[in-house]
Amino acid sequence: MKRKLGVGIIGAGRIGRVHAETVAFRLPEAELRAIADVNRQAAGDVAERCGIPRVAAHASEIFASPDVEAVLICSSTDTHSELVMQAARAGKHIFCEKPVDHNLARIDLALEAVRQAGVKLQVGFNRRFDANFARVRQAVAGGEIGEPHRIHIISRDPAPPPVSYIKVSGGIFLDMTIHDFDMARFLMGSEVEEVYTAAGVMVDPAIGEAGDLDTAVVVLRFENGAIGTIDNSRRAVYGYDQRVEVFGSAGSIATANNFPNQAVVSTAREVRRDLPLHFFMDRYTESFANELRAFAEAVVEDKPTPVNGADGRAPVVMGLAARKSHDERRPVKLAEIG
Amino acid sequence: MKRKLGVGIIGAGRIGRVHAETVAFRLPEAELRAIADVNRQAAGDVAERCGIPRVAAHASEIFASPDVEAVLICSSTDTHSELVMQAARAGKHIFCEKPVDHNLARIDLALEAVRQAGVKLQVGFNRRFDANFARVRQAVAGGEIGEPHRIHIISRDPAPPPVSYIKVSGGIFLDMTIHDFDMARFLMGSEVEEVYTAAGVMVDPAIGEAGDLDTAVVVLRFENGAIGTIDNSRRAVYGYDQRVEVFGSAGSIATANNFPNQAVVSTAREVRRDLPLHFFMDRYTESFANELRAFAEAVVEDKPTPVNGADGRAPVVMGLAARKSHDERRPVKLAEIG
Amino acid sequence: MKRKLGVGIIGAGRIGRVHAETVAFRLPEAELRAIADVNRQAAGDVAERCGIPRVAAHASEIFASPDVEAVLICSSTDTHSELVMQAARAGKHIFCEKPVDHNLARIDLALEAVRQAGVKLQVGFNRRFDANFARVRQAVAGGEIGEPHRIHIISRDPAPPPVSYIKVSGGIFLDMTIHDFDMARFLMGSEVEEVYTAAGVMVDPAIGEAGDLDTAVVVLRFENGAIGTIDNSRRAVYGYDQRVEVFGSAGSIATANNFPNQAVVSTAREVRRDLPLHFFMDRYTESFANELRAFAEAVVEDKPTPVNGADGRAPVVMGLAARKSHDERRPVKLAEIG
Amino acid sequence: MKRKLGVGIIGAGRIGRVHAETVAFRLPEAELRAIADVNRQAAGDVAERCGIPRVAAHASEIFASPDVEAVLICSSTDTHSELVMQAARAGKHIFCEKPVDHNLARIDLALEAVRQAGVKLQVGFNRRFDANFARVRQAVAGGEIGEPHRIHIISRDPAPPPVSYIKVSGGIFLDMTIHDFDMARFLMGSEVEEVYTAAGVMVDPAIGEAGDLDTAVVVLRFENGAIGTIDNSRRAVYGYDQRVEVFGSAGSIATANNFPNQAVVSTAREVRRDLPLHFFMDRYTESFANELRAFAEAVVEDKPTPVNGADGRAPVVMGLAARKSHDERRPVKLAEIG
Repeated sequence: MKRKLGVGIIGAGRIGRVHAETVAFRLPEAELRAIADVNRQAAGDVAERCGIPRVAAHASEIFASPDVEAVLICSSTDTHSELVMQAARAGKHIFCEKPVDHNLARIDLALEAVRQAGVKLQVGFNRRFDANFARVRQAVAGGEIGEPHRIHIISRDPAPPPVSYIKVSGGIFLDMTIHDFDMARFLMGSEVEEVYTAAGVMVDPAIGEAGDLDTAVVVLRFENGAIGTIDNSRRAVYGYDQRVEVFGSAGSIATANNFPNQAVVSTAREVRRDLPLHFFMDRYTESFANELRAFAEAVVEDKPTPVNGADGRAPVVMGLAARKSHDERRPVKLAEIG
Repeated sequence: MKRKLGVGIIGAGRIGRVHAETVAFRLPEAELRAIADVNRQAAGDVAERCGIPRVAAHASEIFASPDVEAVLICSSTDTHSELVMQAARAGKHIFCEKPVDHNLARIDLALEAVRQAGVKLQVGFNRRFDANFARVRQAVAGGEIGEPHRIHIISRDPAPPPVSYIKVSGGIFLDMTIHDFDMARFLMGSEVEEVYTAAGVMVDPAIGEAGDLDTAVVVLRFENGAIGTIDNSRRAVYGYDQRVEVFGSAGSIATANNFPNQAVVSTAREVRRDLPLHFFMDRYTESFANELRAFAEAVVEDKPTPVNGADGRAPVVMGLAARKSHDERRPVKLAEIG
Repeated sequence: MKRKLGVGIIGAGRIGRVHAETVAFRLPEAELRAIADVNRQAAGDVAERCGIPRVAAHASEIFASPDVEAVLICSSTDTHSELVMQAARAGKHIFCEKPVDHNLARIDLALEAVRQAGVKLQVGFNRRFDANFARVRQAVAGGEIGEPHRIHIISRDPAPPPVSYIKVSGGIFLDMTIHDFDMARFLMGSEVEEVYTAAGVMVDPAIGEAGDLDTAVVVLRFENGAIGTIDNSRRAVYGYDQRVEVFGSAGSIATANNFPNQAVVSTAREVRRDLPLHFFMDRYTESFANELRAFAEAVVEDKPTPVNGADGRAPVVMGLAARKSHDERRPVKLAEIG
Repeated sequence: MKRKLGVGIIGAGRIGRVHAETVAFRLPEAELRAIADVNRQAAGDVAERCGIPRVAAHASEIFASPDVEAVLICSSTDTHSELVMQAARAGKHIFCEKPVDHNLARIDLALEAVRQAGVKLQVGFNRRFDANFARVRQAVAGGEIGEPHRIHIISRDPAPPPVSYIKVSGGIFLDMTIHDFDMARFLMGSEVEEVYTAAGVMVDPAIGEAGDLDTAVVVLRFENGAIGTIDNSRRAVYGYDQRVEVFGSAGSIATANNFPNQAVVSTAREVRRDLPLHFFMDRYTESFANELRAFAEAVVEDKPTPVNGADGRAPVVMGLAARKSHDERRPVKLAEIG
């Protein structure tokens, strides 16, 4: 990669700032050219911090910039599909945060726009680029554990988001489990046919009052016959709990959490260590850098992106099915969703 | 406990021999008085090994022996409920291997006989007496992890039994998962209301041809709102995989497997340790001794047994429901079973 | 092994009781015939507990018993060498607790008596029979880690013995480190040529006032060029700390402590587990059974004992050298001791 | 920190490049202004990679640059003390790689120059800024393990450097152990009074022929009475082995190695994980960024540097004493060295 990839960022919220810092300080292969946010102050702060030369008034200004080859769509979820379509029409390569949309029809329109424009699209399922989960994928794909029979994914947040966010989040399955649905497909290398959900409100009644759930088990039946389970909670008091175990005919692979240090203290009371990393940014720092590096590489070297439009769509189908299963208390085939 | 409890054993197969050795060599509080088995040779061998003074021709001979206060029923499952009834009528205290029966009606008859005779009955769910699982129970009961939301039980055998055994085993749910059903109730301190099964034949097609399954996930909904998952396989090539994780509002407790030693070898290829214990007897040695010690104590000190008749019945109901769920591909309420 | 080995025990203190229980309840190959202790009450209690038919007034009575083929010498250290000589002259096979004596000349007399009588002698270095350390030996002997360069032995007691015991203990090197000296020789399969000691009184000044040390590092230079370090403390508040690491040209092997269970609790404060086993009997239960089993087998099958007289002598030489090194603050060659 | 610290780098070898990348991509608080190296090509490559505007012909050019406030001395060890003096006279703040010099007299001259100039000096003992070791320091300083009695430092390289480097390295104690000497002082918060060395050539005879050692144990006696041991090898085939254990009156703290991922694979042969990080840059990436961040902060906020001149001198004294102890086979007091 000789030339630097010109990048524009849309959205200066939490994840937008993360990606801006990654491009600025971790990714010599790319260069930030402009940033846009309805909150001009937020955009300005990120621009100053990361040395971005231009703060745009609207996303459209970025789409119109000739020095921007690729855009990172980091705005709120309800704007994603529309922005993807605009970016595609402007001929920009697109990195879009997950989920592309809560609505399948709009996802399909966006993907169609991308297809017609012939631009690249990568969806922000960063966990594929985490060292632990990449190692699991390597084991499964390389036959290290034989034919996979089972996958168990534990994914628990340290604390629930504010109820105000819960209300616009699309629900636990589209907001949180969606990462795990992606993990399931990615790690097993097989599509899911049917889901069954057992879920409830155990963490905070306000989440239930908002119509959502905070604790869920989703059982997955894969096309290859394997069985998956996803174990979600909106609150693990001990930190960010992110583990996977795949069991197969020749063995198993299981990951542990990441800790801030490897020290163990033994006292007269107990043997203890510090809590696992709490904040998703600390836990997944490297994966964010890795996913953008892979995106930049795909664009510059004209290769397929590692997480494409279909990868963005499938977990949304799974999320809709999971909710339907909960509502109807029965297993639901993905074919029922669309 | 001053006096020694006089014990008779019915059944000199694998588990009968285990219990005989435990009483002979690990349990100073009890004394073996007689053993019976249709296979006289087997009974004789155990008697010689363990210093049992009398080899009885039939179980009835043991029931008629005045120096036998308590019997250990270790014969094949299809004889359990009948022997429990005979023992009860003979006024003997009873330790009966799991399951009491595959048939609920016969279990009920047996439990009624026990009730009428006023003898003590303990069912052989030895895992309650394992140090790991006892510690989990302690954490849950003591509030160490707050209100329990989830339990995940991994229970995988090193290798499947012969297909000839599979055919008379009652199926994976009554033969293998039954232990995990007991663990679920014991560890959570709550009854299960509904189960959902996702299962298949992944280990050996012959098991499927025998009408059974070898890989199963069972989802449990508890009365207290918690959600359980049981993860079974008839073959974990790396050994006997027996783990539990309970997650709650104030934390989690998770157990690891038991290993033959605590040595870790680091070489130019990998960091490795020896496989977990393979054989159930090595893994659960102490629990077998502990359960008989608890039984002897309950008899001698006239206390309730720690695993009673209702504890013997409930997991059978769960097993029948789990199979029904698999057959009908829907969640099944235990109330549907009886 | 068809016949049962007839065993007599001399000494009904802590370790005598341990061995009595092992023979009674764990070792079907042997049978207790008699026990002697100056404290008749103690001997009687053990006899009752373990079903020993005869309580002897003196050790000499045991030596004179034709039904006793082998004796376990478990009395206080100052009586060991004299009892070994008497037992040898009486033609009894001998299991003698460590150390054989604090005095090399008396050890030599005892070993000579054993040699002349042609009886077997095993010295009670039980740790060789522990699963962790046996695994380390296997790795070193089998070349799993290549040529060994370094051994590091951590050996810390949960709490110091009473000062009254310290005063007659022979000092930390002959009382405590002696086990580690044996481990060093056993695990490395090489003799030590020189030691250097850095030690002090850090746990309890009363130990220093009694002329002893409570914290010590002993550096060992082996004949094969390897370097060893022993790390002793009389008090590890978190429990019995017993670990070994051997590092070699092709890798390393390291053991962890043994814990009462494999449960890990994660809370809002920390990730913790229960303390390692505290009591030496809990930690080394199996090794005590294994060493007596090996002794019984050596006698009955007329094989060499796995820990012979020379193995009993060498660690005493090392202990004397370690103290001399401390006193003179210089490395001391074992050849200086004798 | 508002303004950006202007930084010049002297030396574009391995460590120079590391620091350049850190400043360029990880340290928004500082800015690279110039780089110098006798190898112009190397300097040019780093400049291009890291966006350094000026490649200087000599270090003197950097010292003369008004926009350079601080210099990072990353050239070969034999030039360090002279460059420190020149930088000090030029009024530049100084970050100097370890060791400052192999010769104490020259170190003293350099420190005197720094003192007279009133500039800041930080010596490159990066491990103090590693999360594991920082956690150990926190535990010791905070009394979490009580009064420290023992420290054991394991420090093994994955592979020895070329013999050509060994010859100019100053020997294992000044090249490699020097980091561990710093760790010992830093972690224990106490000075060392005496050292004793047991060392040899076990990895490669060529190292011995070059007059150096490749395997060493150094025993440390601290002023506070504690005892330290350092365990060095030039080759650990399984990777970079960097661990510390401190044992005290109220407990212990021990660190494990860092691994590329947290995955464990269980197969029919073993339970294994991937090797620990091999390359020092992977292992200590964060510590390099942290130490420069601390240096920049000390300069900009006019605070003392966290690793000062005395911290640079003391480990050299220890290294000279350790070699003398090896040569004379006796414990050596640091007071003998100077």
